Amino acid sequence: MIITLKKNAPKHEVEKLIKQFENQGLKVNLITGENYNVFGLVGDTAKVDERRIQANEWVENVQRIAAPYKLANRMFHPEDSIIDVRGIKIGGNEPIVVMAGPCSVEGKTMIENIAQEVKEAGAKMLRGGAYKPRTSPYAFQGMQSEGIKCLVNARNKTSLPIVTELMSADKIDEFVENVDLIQIGARNMQNFDLLKAVGKINKPILLKRGLSATIEEWIMSAEYIMASGNPNVILCERGIRTFEKYTRNTLDVSVIPIIKEKTHLPIVIDPSHATGDWKLVEAMSLAAIAAGADGLIIEVHDQPDCAWSDGAQSLKPEKFARLMKKAKAVANAIGREI
Amino acid sequence: MIITLKKNAPKHEVEKLIKQFENQGLKVNLITGENYNVFGLVGDTAKVDERRIQANEWVENVQRIAAPYKLANRMFHPEDSIIDVRGIKIGGNEPIVVMAGPCSVEGKTMIENIAQEVKEAGAKMLRGGAYKPRTSPYAFQGMQSEGIKCLVNARNKTSLPIVTELMSADKIDEFVENVDLIQIGARNMQNFDLLKAVGKINKPILLKRGLSATIEEWIMSAEYIMASGNPNVILCERGIRTFEKYTRNTLDVSVIPIIKEKTHLPIVIDPSHATGDWKLVEAMSLAAIAAGADGLIIEVHDQPDCAWSDGAQSLKPEKFARLMKKAKAVANAIGREI
Amino acid sequence: MIITLKKNAPKHEVEKLIKQFENQGLKVNLITGENYNVFGLVGDTAKVDERRIQANEWVENVQRIAAPYKLANRMFHPEDSIIDVRGIKIGGNEPIVVMAGPCSVEGKTMIENIAQEVKEAGAKMLRGGAYKPRTSPYAFQGMQSEGIKCLVNARNKTSLPIVTELMSADKIDEFVENVDLIQIGARNMQNFDLLKAVGKINKPILLKRGLSATIEEWIMSAEYIMASGNPNVILCERGIRTFEKYTRNTLDVSVIPIIKEKTHLPIVIDPSHATGDWKLVEAMSLAAIAAGADGLIIEVHDQPDCAWSDGAQSLKPEKFARLMKKAKAVANAIGREI
Amino acid sequence: MIITLKKNAPKHEVEKLIKQFENQGLKVNLITGENYNVFGLVGDTAKVDERRIQANEWVENVQRIAAPYKLANRMFHPEDSIIDVRGIKIGGNEPIVVMAGPCSVEGKTMIENIAQEVKEAGAKMLRGGAYKPRTSPYAFQGMQSEGIKCLVNARNKTSLPIVTELMSADKIDEFVENVDLIQIGARNMQNFDLLKAVGKINKPILLKRGLSATIEEWIMSAEYIMASGNPNVILCERGIRTFEKYTRNTLDVSVIPIIKEKTHLPIVIDPSHATGDWKLVEAMSLAAIAAGADGLIIEVHDQPDCAWSDGAQSLKPEKFARLMKKAKAVANAIGREI
Repeated sequence: MIITLKKNAPKHEVEKLIKQFENQGLKVNLITGENYNVFGLVGDTAKVDERRIQANEWVENVQRIAAPYKLANRMFHPEDSIIDVRGIKIGGNEPIVVMAGPCSVEGKTMIENIAQEVKEAGAKMLRGGAYKPRTSPYAFQGMQSEGIKCLVNARNKTSLPIVTELMSADKIDEFVENVDLIQIGARNMQNFDLLKAVGKINKPILLKRGLSATIEEWIMSAEYIMASGNPNVILCERGIRTFEKYTRNTLDVSVIPIIKEKTHLPIVIDPSHATGDWKLVEAMSLAAIAAGADGLIIEVHDQPDCAWSDGAQSLKPEKFARLMKKAKAVANAIGREI
Repeated sequence: MIITLKKNAPKHEVEKLIKQFENQGLKVNLITGENYNVFGLVGDTAKVDERRIQANEWVENVQRIAAPYKLANRMFHPEDSIIDVRGIKIGGNEPIVVMAGPCSVEGKTMIENIAQEVKEAGAKMLRGGAYKPRTSPYAFQGMQSEGIKCLVNARNKTSLPIVTELMSADKIDEFVENVDLIQIGARNMQNFDLLKAVGKINKPILLKRGLSATIEEWIMSAEYIMASGNPNVILCERGIRTFEKYTRNTLDVSVIPIIKEKTHLPIVIDPSHATGDWKLVEAMSLAAIAAGADGLIIEVHDQPDCAWSDGAQSLKPEKFARLMKKAKAVANAIGREI
Repeated sequence: MIITLKKNAPKHEVEKLIKQFENQGLKVNLITGENYNVFGLVGDTAKVDERRIQANEWVENVQRIAAPYKLANRMFHPEDSIIDVRGIKIGGNEPIVVMAGPCSVEGKTMIENIAQEVKEAGAKMLRGGAYKPRTSPYAFQGMQSEGIKCLVNARNKTSLPIVTELMSADKIDEFVENVDLIQIGARNMQNFDLLKAVGKINKPILLKRGLSATIEEWIMSAEYIMASGNPNVILCERGIRTFEKYTRNTLDVSVIPIIKEKTHLPIVIDPSHATGDWKLVEAMSLAAIAAGADGLIIEVHDQPDCAWSDGAQSLKPEKFARLMKKAKAVANAIGREI
Repeated sequence: MIITLKKNAPKHEVEKLIKQFENQGLKVNLITGENYNVFGLVGDTAKVDERRIQANEWVENVQRIAAPYKLANRMFHPEDSIIDVRGIKIGGNEPIVVMAGPCSVEGKTMIENIAQEVKEAGAKMLRGGAYKPRTSPYAFQGMQSEGIKCLVNARNKTSLPIVTELMSADKIDEFVENVDLIQIGARNMQNFDLLKAVGKINKPILLKRGLSATIEEWIMSAEYIMASGNPNVILCERGIRTFEKYTRNTLDVSVIPIIKEKTHLPIVIDPSHATGDWKLVEAMSLAAIAAGADGLIIEVHDQPDCAWSDGAQSLKPEKFARLMKKAKAVANAIGREI
């Protein structure tokens, strides 16, 4: 950690600061510049609060050198983490895992049929929302427990593991019992109580990036789950909020190589929520695979214009099947299976 | 609601759509353009899901005319809502309410002393975090229940109502019993289960804007609380995330006149979190008052460089007192009291 | 174009507006809603100024239906434009064109050597900055005319067409005489006088997207060039400015399918400027190809840590050659050549 | 400047780097940490290219300590710069200067009348666009030279100095001869050739912040003008581009105290372009004054709904007069005149 002091900082203030850091077990190196004095702190700075240091009126700037995350950090865990979701492995050089299904579960037969269709096209997991975060209180809020049952039934019929979103810690038991991969949605990425709660179970967690979360904040949310005891975290990029209006969000494809450099966790891309437009899903899926994604999560619906939510971004099953064929070709081109 | 169809949409598709809308009790008007056909829907469109319509492959564009919120909408509730927080009124032409105190409660004596100091300077409520949302799992997480007790003690000594953040629905009883104004933090602005939970009580709620929430999404979160039964919502702007690096966030002062135009709810500004820098707090506070804010929430700490969180943005009590004097002058200049 | 009036708009104001539009040769349809009145305008609305209409105090909202661009619009020009750059064709189903070379031209031998190396690896054009836009007035501003001569010499030796940036209209003659593909940089995307100037020549133009330009604004800048008489426009995405800090900019891969849907122009991706980090260039290049890009423009330098500008994002020739091999595999996987 | 090396950087690479910096006359201090080695560079680092250093594969991170600007830097020029525009002084403790007038000059009588009206209300300068940057090539491009003549005539009648935008270096003579304050528009903030050109004259320059320019980039553009020889720069904030849709841009009021801390230049606010909505202009004007702005630039038009450009953000003269009264009260409250 590097701390810049104003040049005119009084000597006793500088000494007070040095003593303060030494008391925390850190070694302090001082560099005297022309207009500034600079401290370098050596040691375990993860627990040092940079905002508190910045509060000192003689401090111009504080710069962290070491990343603030440890358990997720590839530096301390060089090999890829491979997460097992009811027998499906994701991460490392495992085949790319495609999760597909409707935005919302709309009934037992409906989800069973779609599960069958996406399985035939090559999907390895079934997605479907039972508890739905909706911007409007007047919009459909999901089938909830009934929806979970429909997913379980579809899994029984197809043996596809199921992934669905948990919105509240008081439903954890239901999810641990029934769900194979528990999704934490973008809007709850910094719902820290929920992160701590899923850190205490050992089911795999699919952690979506918040709409305006930096990559570092996102990794820190993974760190919350891991620090609470659950190492089974899969990261999922679903688009960030920018000024652009032609897409619902901007898919940040560059997170793929960055996450692989900074962490050892698998990275999955959600092109459906990222773009909000089914016409863009195929191109973005192929881009994600070419860039090295470990998985995709894609919305598929038999009748998008009758979907109970987010029809605009859902693929029809035949378009999904076409996408899967192209996805395989691109995966093979970069030396991976799907 | 205005729906644009591609010019080459087959007649039976157009008729199918018209029938679909009429079945929802809407009147449909058709405008035939050169390159597009446009529908206008008249009636209660709040329940119409625009994303589902967009899923239709013949639909080019869907545009909502009426705002998606009703209970918060000034159109249907022209007079200002004035919220009563343990006898302190906020909103309308009531005096501007300043809430002040430390980022985190750090102990009984500490919060009692600061409460006394901010009261003397003219603050009307005491703020202080007991449950703290922190980006890092390794950072101080707040004194929690102990912190709530310290706040209650400070209220007993100063009679200042207290405002503090609720992070999880399972602590609601503790908050209803002890806290006067319950804050929903920026990171939980779309934690819909928490919004529904605080909608079932009738304590006033301070709803902070999410880091990248549009004004419309923010009002929709207020609508969630109101639709669940609690009309006592105060909105709080705390800066939005932009590309700028010299400030922690960008304070969006223009929300003040916008919120007053679109809704009837009071609007409070948090210049401390918005800027992240105590040196900017005074200027931003005065700007907020000049623009018509109903209140301010400001971080004050005796020793910012020893603060357990966010010292960098905390004012010392003497600087806060100076700010209050200037704030009164500006308030008077626009015809308000403080 | 759809215009929403406030419900209480006086009748004579409504009639005045209707007359005003009819005088512009537009047909007006009126839809009366519960809380609003809505006009639909039919006819050539490209010349209607929506901001002037919005100035009317009874107008709530103005929504354009037809895109504001015509010459670039695929609706009126369904087949792909293929641009010829000194014999190299780009766009449609032509082979993907890779342009490569250093950020700045640093000397005759240097650029000649790199030209040779990138040609051997498969590049079809040579890039290199002669006039350099730099944030700091104290930074190297490019070799200027001398740099252009070095590029011409390298073309003579390798027969690679050359692409370089034009910063000011007073250098147009030099560029028309010497340069094959004239780049308009991101910072000049809305330098309208420069756009008009390059619209009057018929050399191909590589129009980079501005750092915070919407896709629509970017297409409108292409429209400026085309409306001035030059149809030879190639669009180039180079990353947009977002809140993320781990990358210099965020590469918006989704522009590829969007540009292909909305316009008939070729689209090229610049992964070097988009990411600012050579370690990310390969993954982003492959993503761009998989998503359907017509070309790439990549920075290559023999000794990046001695580069006179932007070394951090330059690939060494051997890494570029490796990228080209992978790029070919991905291109083939989606049925294209490189 | 602080440079972080990877821990495993070979010794000869470290020594090579040290030698390289020492050859540039810099003193190098090395701090050895647990996972990183850190260099501190002491000396004149303004000319060091951080991107070149970052290109070294052993370098993890480069952090500049000293600001990259010198002439604009308050550290080296502590007293406020006061700029004289044809006798009107702006900056320091001078009275706040309000510039007002239409977006576009639309004719001799029109601009003369508005000039008279804004003067009566208290404006000290006249604004009006003659050369107009427009997103669409089909929109009105300004009266150009004819418009300049109309402005000069209005100045003759009212003795208000005139401010208008220069879009291209080839019109500089016309501007030097006729215009009192030369505006560089947001879209040209990094048109470096234009910045250099206006740096060679000594007329005052009003430099608008780019739509997505960081404060540092904006100051660097001022530095361009100053380094070319013209110290008479006034900065103008006109809103930045964010995700918010209810306003055209987001006015960043916090630049006011920041510009005053970092530089010695005057700061002017443009609430009309920032918000794009006349209903918000009054509140934002008062906010700017309360926060310490040295001036305002406001669009005023007799008939906004007939304005040839940007009517939506223009105030009618009577509303402008009302704003001026309130502005005086707020200015007085913070101890300034208007």
